Amino acid sequence: MLTIDLNCDMGEGFGVYKAGADQQLMHHITSANIACGFHAGDPSTIRQTVRLALECGVAIGAHPGLQDLAGFGRRAMAITPEEVYDLTVYQIGAVHAFAQAQGGSLAHVKPHGALYNMAAGNRQLAEAVAKAVHSFDPKLILFGLAGSELTLAGEAIGLRTMHEAFADRTYESDGTLTPRSIAGAVIKHSERSAEQVIGLIKHGTVRSRQGEVIPLRADTICIHGDTEGALEQVVALRKALEQAGIEVRRASV
Amino acid sequence: MLTIDLNCDMGEGFGVYKAGADQQLMHHITSANIACGFHAGDPSTIRQTVRLALECGVAIGAHPGLQDLAGFGRRAMAITPEEVYDLTVYQIGAVHAFAQAQGGSLAHVKPHGALYNMAAGNRQLAEAVAKAVHSFDPKLILFGLAGSELTLAGEAIGLRTMHEAFADRTYESDGTLTPRSIAGAVIKHSERSAEQVIGLIKHGTVRSRQGEVIPLRADTICIHGDTEGALEQVVALRKALEQAGIEVRRASV
Amino acid sequence: MLTIDLNCDMGEGFGVYKAGADQQLMHHITSANIACGFHAGDPSTIRQTVRLALECGVAIGAHPGLQDLAGFGRRAMAITPEEVYDLTVYQIGAVHAFAQAQGGSLAHVKPHGALYNMAAGNRQLAEAVAKAVHSFDPKLILFGLAGSELTLAGEAIGLRTMHEAFADRTYESDGTLTPRSIAGAVIKHSERSAEQVIGLIKHGTVRSRQGEVIPLRADTICIHGDTEGALEQVVALRKALEQAGIEVRRASV
Amino acid sequence: MLTIDLNCDMGEGFGVYKAGADQQLMHHITSANIACGFHAGDPSTIRQTVRLALECGVAIGAHPGLQDLAGFGRRAMAITPEEVYDLTVYQIGAVHAFAQAQGGSLAHVKPHGALYNMAAGNRQLAEAVAKAVHSFDPKLILFGLAGSELTLAGEAIGLRTMHEAFADRTYESDGTLTPRSIAGAVIKHSERSAEQVIGLIKHGTVRSRQGEVIPLRADTICIHGDTEGALEQVVALRKALEQAGIEVRRASV
Repeated sequence: MLTIDLNCDMGEGFGVYKAGADQQLMHHITSANIACGFHAGDPSTIRQTVRLALECGVAIGAHPGLQDLAGFGRRAMAITPEEVYDLTVYQIGAVHAFAQAQGGSLAHVKPHGALYNMAAGNRQLAEAVAKAVHSFDPKLILFGLAGSELTLAGEAIGLRTMHEAFADRTYESDGTLTPRSIAGAVIKHSERSAEQVIGLIKHGTVRSRQGEVIPLRADTICIHGDTEGALEQVVALRKALEQAGIEVRRASV
Repeated sequence: MLTIDLNCDMGEGFGVYKAGADQQLMHHITSANIACGFHAGDPSTIRQTVRLALECGVAIGAHPGLQDLAGFGRRAMAITPEEVYDLTVYQIGAVHAFAQAQGGSLAHVKPHGALYNMAAGNRQLAEAVAKAVHSFDPKLILFGLAGSELTLAGEAIGLRTMHEAFADRTYESDGTLTPRSIAGAVIKHSERSAEQVIGLIKHGTVRSRQGEVIPLRADTICIHGDTEGALEQVVALRKALEQAGIEVRRASV
Repeated sequence: MLTIDLNCDMGEGFGVYKAGADQQLMHHITSANIACGFHAGDPSTIRQTVRLALECGVAIGAHPGLQDLAGFGRRAMAITPEEVYDLTVYQIGAVHAFAQAQGGSLAHVKPHGALYNMAAGNRQLAEAVAKAVHSFDPKLILFGLAGSELTLAGEAIGLRTMHEAFADRTYESDGTLTPRSIAGAVIKHSERSAEQVIGLIKHGTVRSRQGEVIPLRADTICIHGDTEGALEQVVALRKALEQAGIEVRRASV
Repeated sequence: MLTIDLNCDMGEGFGVYKAGADQQLMHHITSANIACGFHAGDPSTIRQTVRLALECGVAIGAHPGLQDLAGFGRRAMAITPEEVYDLTVYQIGAVHAFAQAQGGSLAHVKPHGALYNMAAGNRQLAEAVAKAVHSFDPKLILFGLAGSELTLAGEAIGLRTMHEAFADRTYESDGTLTPRSIAGAVIKHSERSAEQVIGLIKHGTVRSRQGEVIPLRADTICIHGDTEGALEQVVALRKALEQAGIEVRRASV
């Protein structure tokens, strides 16, 4: 039977500031990427989000980001591979601690925002992330952009990787995401979005913005939790997947 | 044979800022309390300090503090037991991660500065620290002020505790430290300091500022690394301990 | 003609995090207390909030708080008068800069949260705030809890002060606010709230929770912007004030 | 008579962390660039540094940097011109406040580290800095890399600018600084360094690493305070300047 993992960024509040609809969304996903306190998140939020994931049977992941709360970790920074290694280990440790303290365990790591993009395109930074994950625990799963430097680096070091594809974004013929600045880059129709996901799972291909059918591996689909209508979209996607005979299932036990 | 543990705060730099003489002192102590990034310390510093501790065979401890880099965690804050629990778990996780990533393991936890003092005197906060340590790993050792709420709370929850005494501070007859504001509160003579330590280990007593001999348990002695002449003092103390037939040995294997 | 100032905390977002309904509320108040980046607020938010205040003809105030973004400046901290002075001057400077850069000017300063409470009850800290305001610009107006150490300190140093009273909180017979932990401490009925405010303005008195009529000076009324129904409440209050023949007017020109 | 300004970064400590030899160096320079709390510096340090500058008759400047204390503002970040404008206004306000509170005044602004470099090479970011300075106070002087986008943008908006040259760095034939990664990029001999400075002041030229004599405007010379022997170097430079008949004088009165 065909299966797919649905992952979503979670625990992105900070202090008195709330973010996202974690309570609702957690029931519909299989992997939670939990902000670790650098770009978002704080100790209390991590604890609560880990608990919610445990209650829902959702895989707990660390979602390390750049140390840039003011910019939500979305602004690229000129940091060294060593700095990437260090901040990744540190943030993995934070989420791991709350998982362990609550009788659970850490399942995966997915870099956030600018760190995700930097690691997708730069081999040295990708290797630093992969090395951080591997040195902490070689059984952790690394999530990264499908076919990117990050998944390559993870596989090279011996990690299990999950190639991530997007339900609500179009692709270019070279396999990269269409920049948001180009009209039509974001897929707003639930049906077209579900169609793209089902095609990815069944055939391992996607039709690019230019009209070509290109190969793309999709082990996990990114659900955006901070967009309007996020809940409706994931519910619609799950229904479409069910009808297509695809099981939504987390990667790890 | 009588033994004693010598612990010292380590890794208290931040970014470009350096602090302490870790490289020198690490060779003379048996337990390192490593700053975790809240009151001091950063991911790179933690990694380097953990490595240094491993090289020197020194026990690796987390040294969680209040989230107050500007005040070095020395300013009491009105935080709840839940907040104390959360920030302690988080910071334990950070140091644990670097220990595990380098093939070592975390041995103990000692709260820093205002958190140490708050937990020494407030049972609820003490219990929050103890619960955080215990929920993460019940085999961790909790360091706290000798005979304080913190060591009591640790023992109550089933943790192994290390009662901490000071080589360079005088005590009041009620067992508390003489406030630094009182003349003579800090012992500057190496000999008198060593004498106090040896008395604590051999007899479990100390002569108070008022002249009384009072009982005080001392499993570990705090070495201040940021005072002038810190290195000379610890070297002198170790020599005196050796001459007194006391072995300096870490608590954990 | 009787007049009153209505002040409200504004610009309390941070980075991607939004807070409050500034756009709506700004049209109904006369003094904006703008978060300065320590407990909340950031440079972009300050700029936008200053602009909004200028567009609405609302007096621009600095709202300095403790350096505790994680706790929104609500947790008391053991800081020295000198530290209070320094953080107040710094934060005044930040809001002043955006006011000046946009052709406006700073009118007042109101401490936030724990700093407000600490300065209300502690003369030394109150004097530090007052000295900071006065040393930066003696023409600035200091907002503080009516009859507190803060307004006293402001008056002693020669500042114009605005005694603040609350529309939605009951008072004890000693003039202090009823702690929120006591049932009935928060006035939820718009009518009762307006009645209290009108009594304060017309007679300079308030009926305490114990039933006594006590004197209380009210130059400005605090509008809480972060409670549900805040907009409806301020609209209802303004209507009641109008009907009572009281003009809502900012203190400064 | 020929004159030159000597500027130095100052107040770069944070909390308990000290940095630089401000007390010694302040007596030998004419313009102090004071860290504003983003990449370094804190309210207390700013106050003390402003006071020291006033005591020494040194021009007070704001030294705004990126919001990156962990990286000391040296790591380039992908920020927008609007963000640059905002963080520059904010930080100018902070130093201005302490200058005004102590009866002094702000004289200039010099961006720090990565912000300095980003503004030197990117016109949009340069314009954002210049606009921030100008909108706060058009009489402020803007310090920037000689002949860079920053000084151009400053002049375009109507600011007085100070073109900065370096005593201890070699130049390429295109007028840029030799990257530190190239051997010989840093001039260590005091004599050669003084020679370069005197040539800049007398002839407006410098001999490039490639051997060409190229034009370079130098209104102010950057003194590095954090290098070993900084004090000796500036003393030697001042002596050489005196012997060459060049007066060391601040730009503003």
